[in-house]
Amino acid sequence: MRPARADSFLEQLRAVGAQRYHDKHPFHLAMHEGRLTAAQVRGWVANRYYYQKNIPVKDAAILGNLPDRDKRRVWIARILNQDGTLERGGGGLEQWFALARAVGLSDEALHSERDVQPGTRFAVDAYVTFARTQPWLPAVASSLTELFAPDLMSARIEALLAKYPWIDPKGLEYFRNRVTLAARDAESALPWVLQGANDPAEQAACLAALRFKCDVLWAILDATQAAYGIGS
Amino acid sequence: MRPARADSFLEQLRAVGAQRYHDKHPFHLAMHEGRLTAAQVRGWVANRYYYQKNIPVKDAAILGNLPDRDKRRVWIARILNQDGTLERGGGGLEQWFALARAVGLSDEALHSERDVQPGTRFAVDAYVTFARTQPWLPAVASSLTELFAPDLMSARIEALLAKYPWIDPKGLEYFRNRVTLAARDAESALPWVLQGANDPAEQAACLAALRFKCDVLWAILDATQAAYGIGS
Repeated sequence: MRPARADSFLEQLRAVGAQRYHDKHPFHLAMHEGRLTAAQVRGWVANRYYYQKNIPVKDAAILGNLPDRDKRRVWIARILNQDGTLERGGGGLEQWFALARAVGLSDEALHSERDVQPGTRFAVDAYVTFARTQPWLPAVASSLTELFAPDLMSARIEALLAKYPWIDPKGLEYFRNRVTLAARDAESALPWVLQGANDPAEQAACLAALRFKCDVLWAILDATQAAYGIGS
Repeated sequence: MRPARADSFLEQLRAVGAQRYHDKHPFHLAMHEGRLTAAQVRGWVANRYYYQKNIPVKDAAILGNLPDRDKRRVWIARILNQDGTLERGGGGLEQWFALARAVGLSDEALHSERDVQPGTRFAVDAYVTFARTQPWLPAVASSLTELFAPDLMSARIEALLAKYPWIDPKGLEYFRNRVTLAARDAESALPWVLQGANDPAEQAACLAALRFKCDVLWAILDATQAAYGIGS
């Protein structure tokens, strides 16, 4: 069995997103259609926080498994982008707290993790374990949901602005940044995966990793929907 | 049993260095006394390279185990210092290659790892595994050999300049940088350990971690000495 040609492998990666990316989840569709109550939006922000919080954790795990310095020099930007820096502060995690405030959640509520559902926790913890224990190639491939993220982020900003006028627009900085950052991250990770997966087994592992990551994002929404419901 | 008071705990940490830091190893004493042959210096640089190469790997592992963003913002500097950055290049690893060239080792010789002795590999791999699997507090404590490093680095620069005139002084940039960086790293890690180790068990784990790290450095010199000997 020969490896799928690069263009066909890329098509297969994109097909995973077309089938399984969480933009198709009922809770997500309802969010973008303006059908969520304030409590449901807050529930989503509080649960998604647990994912945000663990992004630098899984990225540090992958960083330590990368095969060379040149790849680390690229990957470390993800951690700096999410954590911010000692000199300048900032970072995606800080922007997520700003979003939380804009929807009426205190920093303390987020920090306490009291709204984080068990299903969210299991999914995110599985993602961290995956990053820690898998070879770097499928671990990097699991990040390729970023291929699908920029469109979703743009649509989300529009939807939140239009459908939830009670949310302070200043709180949406996280999503504004992700439009650019997700595209840049995918741009650097995609060639590693396309060139690194040289046989059918490695390509299959990368596709499975991307499906797994879609399942993680989907399960967070399942848990959120189960706890807070959809609509009034 | 009450925890040792902070000053006494610090004294215990310093005592580990006084007893076990690798500046007391016969190979090290011989290096600083100018008794090593060129082949022995090269053997040391080639073996120590395997340690250098794995510094960002163990630091990424610790980064992913740190309990919060503020600590990550501090710790990530270690990885940036060793790997350099995408924008500006540089970094300790690059400086180690410059040292290797200055003692007559090609980049290819270093990359190939053909001179890396099994004992070196076992010791360094054990250090990486320790960083990956231990809680962050003892893992950070294992880095505290940096308390003892600045003095050694200064002495090493002097000794190499005075005793090995055939080494190009430009190759010593790594050690010049470590005088400052090791002090800065220890300055940030030490308070975490002193304040984080709140009971006798945690203090004992930190002291054991520091002893373990000293053993790693010592074993690299044992393996180097066994392979290349001391003096002509």
